[in-house]
Amino acid sequence: MATQRSGGAGVTGNMVIAQSGGPTAVINQSLVGAIVEAKKHREIKGIYGSLHGLKGLLEERLCDLRKESPANLERVARTPSSALGSVRKKPTPEDCAKVFEVLRRHDIRFFFYIGGNDSAETTHIINEEARKAGFPIRCFHICKTIDNDLRENDHTPGYGSAARFVAQAFMGDNLDNRSLPGVKINVVMGRHAGFLTAASALARVFPDDGPHLIYLPERPFSMERFIADVQAVYAKHGRCIVAVSEGIADEKGEPIASKFIKETDSHGNVQLSGSGALGDLLAAEVKAKANISRVRADTFGYLQRSFVGVVSPVDAREARQVGVMAVRFAVSGRFESGSTAIRRAPGRAYRTTIERVELAMVAKETRHMPGEFIAPSGNDVTTAFLDYARPLVGELPEIGRLKAVPVARRG
Amino acid sequence: MATQRSGGAGVTGNMVIAQSGGPTAVINQSLVGAIVEAKKHREIKGIYGSLHGLKGLLEERLCDLRKESPANLERVARTPSSALGSVRKKPTPEDCAKVFEVLRRHDIRFFFYIGGNDSAETTHIINEEARKAGFPIRCFHICKTIDNDLRENDHTPGYGSAARFVAQAFMGDNLDNRSLPGVKINVVMGRHAGFLTAASALARVFPDDGPHLIYLPERPFSMERFIADVQAVYAKHGRCIVAVSEGIADEKGEPIASKFIKETDSHGNVQLSGSGALGDLLAAEVKAKANISRVRADTFGYLQRSFVGVVSPVDAREARQVGVMAVRFAVSGRFESGSTAIRRAPGRAYRTTIERVELAMVAKETRHMPGEFIAPSGNDVTTAFLDYARPLVGELPEIGRLKAVPVARRG
Repeated sequence: MATQRSGGAGVTGNMVIAQSGGPTAVINQSLVGAIVEAKKHREIKGIYGSLHGLKGLLEERLCDLRKESPANLERVARTPSSALGSVRKKPTPEDCAKVFEVLRRHDIRFFFYIGGNDSAETTHIINEEARKAGFPIRCFHICKTIDNDLRENDHTPGYGSAARFVAQAFMGDNLDNRSLPGVKINVVMGRHAGFLTAASALARVFPDDGPHLIYLPERPFSMERFIADVQAVYAKHGRCIVAVSEGIADEKGEPIASKFIKETDSHGNVQLSGSGALGDLLAAEVKAKANISRVRADTFGYLQRSFVGVVSPVDAREARQVGVMAVRFAVSGRFESGSTAIRRAPGRAYRTTIERVELAMVAKETRHMPGEFIAPSGNDVTTAFLDYARPLVGELPEIGRLKAVPVARRG
Repeated sequence: MATQRSGGAGVTGNMVIAQSGGPTAVINQSLVGAIVEAKKHREIKGIYGSLHGLKGLLEERLCDLRKESPANLERVARTPSSALGSVRKKPTPEDCAKVFEVLRRHDIRFFFYIGGNDSAETTHIINEEARKAGFPIRCFHICKTIDNDLRENDHTPGYGSAARFVAQAFMGDNLDNRSLPGVKINVVMGRHAGFLTAASALARVFPDDGPHLIYLPERPFSMERFIADVQAVYAKHGRCIVAVSEGIADEKGEPIASKFIKETDSHGNVQLSGSGALGDLLAAEVKAKANISRVRADTFGYLQRSFVGVVSPVDAREARQVGVMAVRFAVSGRFESGSTAIRRAPGRAYRTTIERVELAMVAKETRHMPGEFIAPSGNDVTTAFLDYARPLVGELPEIGRLKAVPVARRG
């Protein structure tokens, strides 16, 4: 069976590629990177896309990606959100049997799945089921997620651009709040990992700039502590900008937002985005308990993952490269399956490599922000985090502030 | 008294400039335009800024804008949100008397107030009170508002950039919703005028692109009609993107959002932004009554007016120019007071001029979207609106979509 599945570099056949989970601003770079690379390898005949991930495979809804013009592929690469459509679905063993039937009919020997940890799990399940069934397929997961929570990766494609959006949003919101002072709470995506919320800290230019407080899912959230923190900042600056991860949870690990929202997907994830409930709750608490009149909350929602026109150039380049490398790993004959992982070289200069890791190493479980990135206070990030995140986001727009030299009073 | 106030082109003295109301991405262009122009006129001696609009004048918190370096002024011009700070405050006659006392002490003879209709009203009140008191001051309002609802103006500085943000956000959100289909409701700023919400229509590239439904404050909102509209679009496209103005109101003119939010400012405006309540209400109604499972709502909130990095070049240029022209009008000796108004020349090519209009003509009352911009259905905009808005927003990023030529089924 092993020989049937690997067979050295000599395996030939069609490939299918699909996208899964939440879209990103650069996920189509990975798709196009894989397509363009696949065209260079004789082992790969047909290049098919499955519409809406696993769903398209189950329903035999495939498209022929060799029929896309190079110019259109490049347009698609620069366009946010999953061009093939996406899905949130964990395959059952019965689903896998159906998928293999479709793959067999279309002589598909290479399977690429672009997504986060749930999509890595899907790829892993399909790979394991294929092994059990003796179905010859090379299964590769291509990393992406704005949450930046894939294990084995220094960071993930999609994160840099979403982090850039969050940083630019906080830069503007800090200026807005400075002009009309009050308390402003912004809820940022991130179910279990605080990386994206933490990126708000990149918005700071001047010493009194917000966000002044940053709450991450990695530290238990206490409402009393939060109110006290806001009061302290407000007393000092006359205003307060707060970054809150949608995934903040209490001492018992129960998400604060889940007290309001009960919808889950088949991976068991609670739906946290697409509702302003958490922000509104926190704003109401501040109004009621901190005795501050101007309190506002915004929930960045889906804007932060698919906004058109805010892309980190480094992120776009790396997203492309993981697509390219997944195809190279698959046709190399050295691996039957795997995932792409971005590794950062030590040293001051920013350099990365893309390595092949085992599917099981990235599937399912997520990575959290390391302790060294979180301030001991639990309501801020460290310089180590800023050094880590800055190259991923790229150079941010320049911010100007008036010197505002006071005119002597004549009263 | 009239001679005391006008005195031909010979009036000399200091000037003060301030910013008021909601910030925009380009409001500092107007500030810097006025400062740079003021430096060219011998009539203007000191160039002062008042911190937080009227508040700074009442508290005698002025800064010396001649002490800003040209390079820093240009940095500030490119930075969103009111660099001098803002305020929402309508002056009482007592406030005016206090203001005149401060102006007198500082030999201020030129007053410039950058803002929307409420700020025009403030300028008008100050001008009228000055006339009554025989206080010699030239009062000029400099137009701005993302709402685009100033009378006498073809459009207002700040609108183009906010509209660009809304268009780019909807472009991305449409792609996001296409990849993970469902109903998505986005709440856009706009208290009384639907211009900003209408700009969402600029996001459409392909015939099935959203927003599929657009609800404006200019047409009464019916929940039953809304649910039926969403169901019809969902039946056709398997998904639905909705743009809703925060200011949508029922048949009696009561804002739907005001059923939840009760905070008002001294101009009597209900606070509609900074809460996800309206979006969440609409999403809950769709879930409950339209039997659609994936329903999400985002409220764009403050992002759309101060986001760093999304600016319409035309908007930036015009914002600069209204600042310049206000100073020219003030020193010309032809007018004691006035507001700047952007007028568009007829014809296909986009050309504008800036004219001086009476303060009373722009103060207080707002402009609504003309009927020709709203589709007869009441849930969309017309081609006339798109033609009107396109030049204000500038060229939008290119969007690519796969041809996705189907692979023949082999089942």
